[in-house]
Amino acid sequence: MAEFFNVLPPDEARALLFHHLTQTLPPETILTEGALGRVTAEALYAPHALPTFRRSTMDGFAVRAADTFGASASLPAFLTVVGEVGMGVAADVSLAVGEAAVVHTGGMIPETADAVVQVEWTQAMGQPGQFPYEVEALKAVAGGQNVLQVGEDVRQGDEILPAGHLLRPQDLGGLLALGITEAAVSRQPRVAVMATGDEVVAPSETAGPGRIRDINSYTIAAQIRQAGGIPVLQGIVPDKLEALKTAAAAALAENDMLVMSAGSSVSVRDMTVQVIDGLGKPGVLLHGVATRPGKPTIVGVVGGKLVLGLPGNPVSAMIQFDMFGVPAVWRVQGLHSPPRRGIVKAKVSQNIASESGREDYVPARLEETADGLTAVPIFGKSNLIYTLVNADGILKVPINKSGLEAGEVVEVRLFD
Amino acid sequence: MAEFFNVLPPDEARALLFHHLTQTLPPETILTEGALGRVTAEALYAPHALPTFRRSTMDGFAVRAADTFGASASLPAFLTVVGEVGMGVAADVSLAVGEAAVVHTGGMIPETADAVVQVEWTQAMGQPGQFPYEVEALKAVAGGQNVLQVGEDVRQGDEILPAGHLLRPQDLGGLLALGITEAAVSRQPRVAVMATGDEVVAPSETAGPGRIRDINSYTIAAQIRQAGGIPVLQGIVPDKLEALKTAAAAALAENDMLVMSAGSSVSVRDMTVQVIDGLGKPGVLLHGVATRPGKPTIVGVVGGKLVLGLPGNPVSAMIQFDMFGVPAVWRVQGLHSPPRRGIVKAKVSQNIASESGREDYVPARLEETADGLTAVPIFGKSNLIYTLVNADGILKVPINKSGLEAGEVVEVRLFD
Repeated sequence: MAEFFNVLPPDEARALLFHHLTQTLPPETILTEGALGRVTAEALYAPHALPTFRRSTMDGFAVRAADTFGASASLPAFLTVVGEVGMGVAADVSLAVGEAAVVHTGGMIPETADAVVQVEWTQAMGQPGQFPYEVEALKAVAGGQNVLQVGEDVRQGDEILPAGHLLRPQDLGGLLALGITEAAVSRQPRVAVMATGDEVVAPSETAGPGRIRDINSYTIAAQIRQAGGIPVLQGIVPDKLEALKTAAAAALAENDMLVMSAGSSVSVRDMTVQVIDGLGKPGVLLHGVATRPGKPTIVGVVGGKLVLGLPGNPVSAMIQFDMFGVPAVWRVQGLHSPPRRGIVKAKVSQNIASESGREDYVPARLEETADGLTAVPIFGKSNLIYTLVNADGILKVPINKSGLEAGEVVEVRLFD
Repeated sequence: MAEFFNVLPPDEARALLFHHLTQTLPPETILTEGALGRVTAEALYAPHALPTFRRSTMDGFAVRAADTFGASASLPAFLTVVGEVGMGVAADVSLAVGEAAVVHTGGMIPETADAVVQVEWTQAMGQPGQFPYEVEALKAVAGGQNVLQVGEDVRQGDEILPAGHLLRPQDLGGLLALGITEAAVSRQPRVAVMATGDEVVAPSETAGPGRIRDINSYTIAAQIRQAGGIPVLQGIVPDKLEALKTAAAAALAENDMLVMSAGSSVSVRDMTVQVIDGLGKPGVLLHGVATRPGKPTIVGVVGGKLVLGLPGNPVSAMIQFDMFGVPAVWRVQGLHSPPRRGIVKAKVSQNIASESGREDYVPARLEETADGLTAVPIFGKSNLIYTLVNADGILKVPINKSGLEAGEVVEVRLFD
């Protein structure tokens, strides 16, 4: 219980969490075409070079570059066109000195050619299509000009993607171009989300006097999905120690992480600490983060798995899940360099008070003004979900500053 | 065919497209909890106020603020605690002058109270829990202090979300807090993706001499998914006019958009123009965009639906789909103000040549240096998918600039 009073700045808190979060999820092999947003479980290497054959980047004539030496509009080079390389077939035309072959963009270059004269730089003398016919090349080309070389994109054996890489559309393309139709990726973490609180009812119920609807289960589930995890909702568990212990143990056994959205009263926080410590070792790592909102966040690890006790306030819960839950979802998949988040710079529209030694997060609306982008803070207690609904992003008052002045340039993290 | 030579700057091209893209998709009603990333089909209004009752933001004592007037540590106000308001129940305690009730964070405030003294500012005199007992309030509170008022988050009848709003995690929370468990959202567009080219084979096949694997179908499908559409792959259609016309007509009839990834040779582009013009009116709007890569993009609209002819080069295809396809996927769902994209500023590591009158897009890797963020351009022909795989984003050379100088600060659009 020494940790009970342990309130750390966000960076130190995350470092402590990562030190204990030893879990990594096992790989599974899936179809590459369905792997968007998944994380590679191992480095991948090119089974062959790309392109596999020399390709033209232009419509024109495959030539021996030397045959065009010195060619110009006033002194063209005369070439004999002896054939055409169709699309999708091997270039079986052999070029003798002074000969050329019709090629199309993306088509294969005959072995005896080393450059392509684009059609715009030529003048046909005979009747194209009836070989042989003559063309004038009005410009010289250098060896390799307008030609993609074998291995110019990747060479055989190259590491094409490291382990721990988040797969984007182009990555799927890069793998499929090499015939890699299946890939080993980390299994997606299953994250149990449990709401607690005698005052909490399901969204479909009427929120009578003293009662509020559970929304944290759903906002956090959506954040889990955006981060690449699978939310597993556990419903609402009453604020009774034994009931919570039983439900939490079952949820953690069946899933890879557990997030409890509890109330913010001291008694409920105490109970959450007891529940987490009762689940196993090391238990609660810290009980509080030096941020506003979200100070009463409880960060724990049990058997290498994250167990997070979030404040009941919806704004605190979302901000704190973004601070600890999202990086954990990435990390257990082996994603060690997280994706860069969208950040814009904007002038803050008014003074914002803060306390040094604490990071403050303020929802903000962005407005385009004559003076550039302006961030308008949306003040409100952290119980007010509409402060986030009405915002475009979150403005951070750094831990070492005691506020911001109107007109100061700040960074606003856009919502995903 | 006058449009054949119509090459427009990107902004004008998009404006022309949007002028003709009259299609909007019908709404469907779905569960709010599953509506992440969907677009509201109508404005939504608050059926009741939020909170529905006055709530404490602290653990402490509900009081009449006047009873604490002038209280201080040296001259405390004496209050008689007559009861406790449990969580999840109505506050049925009635406070006479000089009386207080225990309340918890998030709990309801008795009708006769108007403020909360937080527990840290009090000193209990009797035995808490056995009512009545005495507490000293060591500070005065103002009316409304530590209390969330009814309607402080939203008032009954407020417009909570406009039509055409992309639903984020907090938006789902905002709706569910009000009991809105279903919402009308635009149907997601089905986007047919067709590969063409005699040289193109499926990724599972061996790419023999002259042949390449189809990757554009899959990179574009992934881009469609990221934008919120549903890709419907049509496979590879041979480069024969009649086969293409038949396949394109069927794909467009069954879907909301059609994207054809064709080769870049002039004959194939001509054929794509013929196919699109043959589908209906207005047909091809422009045949070329003043960008590099991606100039030979064909933008068409048929019966209000987008028909896009992309270059075969994978880099061009992705950049051009991002330029026309992604905004179209947003727009037909009614999303008129697109999400802000992640953009970072970085110093370009070397000179980049360009031509005025053309927007150049260069894949770039980002490196953290002592001098700040540096963008290292990844040069390579637009056939090379690994120029995108190895990049963190895309650097734009504006249309009115003839290049960038090393050290110049540029904007890099991060990949999603």
